[in-house]
Amino acid sequence: MAYIKLNNQLPGITGLLENRPDTGDHIRALTQVLLRGESSLTEMERELIATLVSYRNECRFCTSAHAATVKALGGDDELLDKVFHDADNAPVSDKMKALLNIAAKVQKLGKEVKEEDVERAKKHGATDVEIHDTVLIAALFCLYNRYVDGLGTYRPEDPGYYEKLAQRLVTVGYMRPREGVIPVAETTYR
Amino acid sequence: MAYIKLNNQLPGITGLLENRPDTGDHIRALTQVLLRGESSLTEMERELIATLVSYRNECRFCTSAHAATVKALGGDDELLDKVFHDADNAPVSDKMKALLNIAAKVQKLGKEVKEEDVERAKKHGATDVEIHDTVLIAALFCLYNRYVDGLGTYRPEDPGYYEKLAQRLVTVGYMRPREGVIPVAETTYR
Repeated sequence: MAYIKLNNQLPGITGLLENRPDTGDHIRALTQVLLRGESSLTEMERELIATLVSYRNECRFCTSAHAATVKALGGDDELLDKVFHDADNAPVSDKMKALLNIAAKVQKLGKEVKEEDVERAKKHGATDVEIHDTVLIAALFCLYNRYVDGLGTYRPEDPGYYEKLAQRLVTVGYMRPREGVIPVAETTYR
Repeated sequence: MAYIKLNNQLPGITGLLENRPDTGDHIRALTQVLLRGESSLTEMERELIATLVSYRNECRFCTSAHAATVKALGGDDELLDKVFHDADNAPVSDKMKALLNIAAKVQKLGKEVKEEDVERAKKHGATDVEIHDTVLIAALFCLYNRYVDGLGTYRPEDPGYYEKLAQRLVTVGYMRPREGVIPVAETTYR
């Protein structure tokens, strides 16, 4: 049971987004651009950033959901374990190690990211867009994790729940099923 | 100079939002709903939440911008000082004190918010919508602060800059000047 009354029985973030489409649809759209939009980072690389940040923010719902998504995209528990605890020795590219280092610093505080962290990523071939997206994905999951836990949402224990959710995030993405056109001017008031 | 090359010379968040409208417009729209949409919280109360979180995240650009906005809405330095350092004795309602307590906990980590924090707010008359919006505004500024500082954006020293920005946020709001209709389906790819 969440700390506030929702208009549905859905767990974690899914209940919050459904409860308030006036805010939820913008959060969904932002996530869709960052995690599923055209990018030189793979979907798995972007999901790894989301999972690492959620893990470090101790958000069990989001960690379970995005870890399952990494696995649905071909990753495994060993990869996740390395990324969580020893990213510099994880089976990912040097560029990705440098981006995960930036994401981990963003999780702590923006000003933890230093010029040398960005230089390291650039040295290993990261583009400005990749660095931008890494920082914004990490920042977005700092929002998600706090939203989900700050309102005390319900977290299923059954791993099957997260596997099903991951399938949806891999095949359908982050938008609402009945998505359409949101006239931004109309979202000002609810 | 930000850590990455932007398509403009604008400081802080303004340069980032302008550089990437595909993500920026969704962030703007979410902020407009939360901080300027219809609400039983005043605009100043919502800006106080944003300012407190930015202050605790040590984001000087966002703190300066939203402190100036609080002042443009009628607040003063004494109010801000109390909210930053001694919120329980700030000249705000008991409901608002309880909401600022929740926001301060969200700034740390979602799971820091306990049922008793929410009960305290409800006891002082906070509605579920107000509690929801407090948590999501606090979470959103955890995103903003990390985005601004994680990319090392330029921060003007001149207080006049923030006063001008605040005037815009009070009179125009958070949307882009030439806003229109964003077809969400088209934002998936950039």
